Amino acid sequence: MKRIKLTVAYDGTHYAGYQVQPNGNTIQAEVEAVLARMHSRAVKVVASGRTDARVHARGQILHFDTHLSMPVDRFVKALNAMLPDDILVQAAEEVDASFHARYGAKRKEYRYFFRGDADPFRRHHAVTVTYTLDHERMRQALRLLVGTHDFTSFSVTKAEVEDRVRTIYEAELVEAGDEMYFRFVGSGFLYNQVRIMVGTLLEVGRGKYEPADVSRMLASKDRRSAGITAPPHGLYLWNVNYEKVD
Amino acid sequence: MKRIKLTVAYDGTHYAGYQVQPNGNTIQAEVEAVLARMHSRAVKVVASGRTDARVHARGQILHFDTHLSMPVDRFVKALNAMLPDDILVQAAEEVDASFHARYGAKRKEYRYFFRGDADPFRRHHAVTVTYTLDHERMRQALRLLVGTHDFTSFSVTKAEVEDRVRTIYEAELVEAGDEMYFRFVGSGFLYNQVRIMVGTLLEVGRGKYEPADVSRMLASKDRRSAGITAPPHGLYLWNVNYEKVD
Repeated sequence: MKRIKLTVAYDGTHYAGYQVQPNGNTIQAEVEAVLARMHSRAVKVVASGRTDARVHARGQILHFDTHLSMPVDRFVKALNAMLPDDILVQAAEEVDASFHARYGAKRKEYRYFFRGDADPFRRHHAVTVTYTLDHERMRQALRLLVGTHDFTSFSVTKAEVEDRVRTIYEAELVEAGDEMYFRFVGSGFLYNQVRIMVGTLLEVGRGKYEPADVSRMLASKDRRSAGITAPPHGLYLWNVNYEKVD
Repeated sequence: MKRIKLTVAYDGTHYAGYQVQPNGNTIQAEVEAVLARMHSRAVKVVASGRTDARVHARGQILHFDTHLSMPVDRFVKALNAMLPDDILVQAAEEVDASFHARYGAKRKEYRYFFRGDADPFRRHHAVTVTYTLDHERMRQALRLLVGTHDFTSFSVTKAEVEDRVRTIYEAELVEAGDEMYFRFVGSGFLYNQVRIMVGTLLEVGRGKYEPADVSRMLASKDRRSAGITAPPHGLYLWNVNYEKVD
């Protein structure tokens, strides 16, 4: 047996999310179905984490174990030949048996794309924000999210996680042609954390909150103190890093 | 009555083409349905020309006549509020009763997007070409298409058009980030002409034809002498110009 690490991009538009669930097709179900055909048996795939319905990935990381003797780079072509065209395996590499896509993840990067004018070609891939946004206010608020904080206020209350302390290493607002995106690099993110941070930042940009309110929201440890949850389709799991952070 | 000119963008992925037809939903049917609701009667829409199934538009031009007294710029919001989100009215303006979206068109620009690596986010919007292309060869062939020619070899034989002489004013190959596109500006294009020109150019780039073969193809006035028809989803009607060309 050898362990294979896959780097996968997917357009989440037509999926109920990453993780297998009773109702609705998922990324995991598609990948596992193809691997089962290749292996003539069920193959369990582990991801760095789940993504919600309509959320995208540019560099999701998966691992699975295989007894197939084919060269590892052949997995890329073989999988892509059978996967639907909204899921693309970008790379495959053999990794040590100690590699674990979820537990080994040291940093994750998410990006959230938005734009000022509606574009039919980006309707599933960037959120349209028609009100005026003050970028400087949003950048001030972004700086307050960087660091190690208890992000309870920026997570879904039903999420049964004991420890809600996470570290954000980088948070920035980037202009990219007709669009802009928020970029977050962190040790990990709570369920819906990025979408709640983005929803709040947009409300700061719009003037509903002051930038300094973000510190108050963090301190309150109460979901009701933060802003709305931004829609899923602007969000991308951009990459996952497994190297130790100094 | 006043005549309104609309500039419309659409993602053609989920449509059977622009023009109303018995089977399948079309752009024209969507726009006419919304106008019928606004006017409480049938409203006929005229386009600069049709686009095929899965072909896109950035600047399709339509016109219709209305008795509604609302300010012309209000049509943009009203139409977009009712249209599906893969069709976007970008502008509306009142034009002279002599304006005709089809007969008045003086120049049309089409672009055809392609890329070297598959991208799940562009699967419906750019064609993936995995073989190696010689750009210089394609540029040589492009130059031979510019000018006034009988494009019979680059049109569908079934098209019942008497005069197949058209003028191409500009033809170029443009690099755009991860992608490239062919850009054609012409007096008008025959049915499937751009897709057959692109299919032929890609075969020139690949080495199946010599650039100079394009002149031979034009001279033969025989569809069988030219290359394949490129797939629809890389093609965009980019804009339509109604000003007189010197």
